[in-house]
Amino acid sequence: MVPDVAVPPDHGPLHDVRESDEIGAGTRIWAFAHVMKGAVIGRDCNNRGPCLRRNRSAHRRPGHPKEPGNGVGRVEIGDDVFVGPGVSFTNDVSPRSRRLPLPAVAAGYRIEAEWLVPTRVGNGASLGARCVILPGAHIGAYAMVAAGAVVTHHVPAQALVAGVPAKRVGWVCQCGARLVEEQAKLWQCPQCGKTYDEHGADGCTSLAPSR
Amino acid sequence: MVPDVAVPPDHGPLHDVRESDEIGAGTRIWAFAHVMKGAVIGRDCNNRGPCLRRNRSAHRRPGHPKEPGNGVGRVEIGDDVFVGPGVSFTNDVSPRSRRLPLPAVAAGYRIEAEWLVPTRVGNGASLGARCVILPGAHIGAYAMVAAGAVVTHHVPAQALVAGVPAKRVGWVCQCGARLVEEQAKLWQCPQCGKTYDEHGADGCTSLAPSR
Amino acid sequence: MVPDVAVPPDHGPLHDVRESDEIGAGTRIWAFAHVMKGAVIGRDCNNRGPCLRRNRSAHRRPGHPKEPGNGVGRVEIGDDVFVGPGVSFTNDVSPRSRRLPLPAVAAGYRIEAEWLVPTRVGNGASLGARCVILPGAHIGAYAMVAAGAVVTHHVPAQALVAGVPAKRVGWVCQCGARLVEEQAKLWQCPQCGKTYDEHGADGCTSLAPSR
Repeated sequence: MVPDVAVPPDHGPLHDVRESDEIGAGTRIWAFAHVMKGAVIGRDCNNRGPCLRRNRSAHRRPGHPKEPGNGVGRVEIGDDVFVGPGVSFTNDVSPRSRRLPLPAVAAGYRIEAEWLVPTRVGNGASLGARCVILPGAHIGAYAMVAAGAVVTHHVPAQALVAGVPAKRVGWVCQCGARLVEEQAKLWQCPQCGKTYDEHGADGCTSLAPSR
Repeated sequence: MVPDVAVPPDHGPLHDVRESDEIGAGTRIWAFAHVMKGAVIGRDCNNRGPCLRRNRSAHRRPGHPKEPGNGVGRVEIGDDVFVGPGVSFTNDVSPRSRRLPLPAVAAGYRIEAEWLVPTRVGNGASLGARCVILPGAHIGAYAMVAAGAVVTHHVPAQALVAGVPAKRVGWVCQCGARLVEEQAKLWQCPQCGKTYDEHGADGCTSLAPSR
Repeated sequence: MVPDVAVPPDHGPLHDVRESDEIGAGTRIWAFAHVMKGAVIGRDCNNRGPCLRRNRSAHRRPGHPKEPGNGVGRVEIGDDVFVGPGVSFTNDVSPRSRRLPLPAVAAGYRIEAEWLVPTRVGNGASLGARCVILPGAHIGAYAMVAAGAVVTHHVPAQALVAGVPAKRVGWVCQCGARLVEEQAKLWQCPQCGKTYDEHGADGCTSLAPSR
């Protein structure tokens, strides 16, 4: 990716802090954003959030059995992602200021959920103002996180989630409008007419554009 | 309005971003606040929030049938308003990074709720730390939004709202204290003694100072 | 305390605002943090929150009968405290931009809860991303506040609290892992093995390390 960050022409002084070069062309970073080392941002994103976490490797504890490599404990943001003002990504489900040395037998305890799984935001997704994304969450393509939500689990593609903690309250179209269930397992956008098929059952459903 | 922003004497460097000249006399803008173009702020406000949205016209989609003019899709803050640290105003109920062109028939779909109604904050209202105000919400005079609340609907004058999404949990006096219902539909302030009459019924009530 | 703030070596420009000298050795203050006058921060803290409140005395109202001294209406942060990105401390339960003069009889009304009790954060505690701490709250040693929580009451030592408003959802170890109740009133850490005794009853319980 070429670091070619377009500054909005009417923007004024930025005062942002940018430590990553992996920012896609056409992406806008707004005032007071802090993009840390290891963050990866796609093309044509609109990023107003102040804090993108760095590669977790800088924080690893003594006695940690695995060496985190690239893509571990970091934030990967796809193309065309909207990141609202005040959005925070986090890199630790149980942060402590000072890491105590752990007995060797316990060193691998929390690895899976937190250390080996990067936080991912799919193409076209939107993260509303002041939402918080907990470590390791995967946010599906074109999902929409409501303002002020705290995302603690994965968010399926096209889902609209809201609340603390965030729960799914609907489905949204790629154009942003809320979908309406026209018939069983067939959802349609009242704004642009696009249709989606629902898959899965029992609260574990997902949506994909109809062919 | 005269742009006569008083910087608190003990403040230190500001590092704020200010793009609007429509800021009333006596209003204080704190560090890391971002006041965007099109924002209008009254007199004697105490503004610590980092993000006031700009005039929506800069974001309008292709094919949009109406030309938004002044007062459309913007934030209007009255006099004596308290805006706590980390407060965000938003300008889109369903934000997307890249706006897809819409079929002509659908172009007016979302206009009313989001595009034609400015966000308004009445005189004397208070917005608590890190609350989020969704687009088009009207916050009544002397209302109080609790810290961390997400305001998705209108807030009546003198109301105290809290939570995600914000719900009314009480009434507050102009002096800030919580009101007590002394007799049916008559509320009194235990701090300053002021009384208010309740109007309306069935969950759609409002308060006004007694004559 | 000696103001000896270690800037992370890979940090880049800070743009933070720091007005207090009472910051302990080894403490890291991150970008866009605003540490106001009167804030006291211990040693080895990791502080990414943007807003630590100042001594309340600067805000006191006309007619206030007591002169707040040191330690009144301020934030005191112990040693080894983690303060996540976007955390806000507040200094007023019912903020107003302009303070109305109150009748003399009412001047002491809100003093106790808000004016005389400093906000305290115990040693080793963690404040998650974008949480808000209301005035006067005491957060016990090694407690953990989840991301996005709004703390309105005291938090016992070792407690894990979450939500808006924050409620206790578990207990955590000094090492950060969630504790498991091995037998009645005896909790153990599955990560490091440390044990804790539960005291109290009927929803008013607390935890302390076993001897």
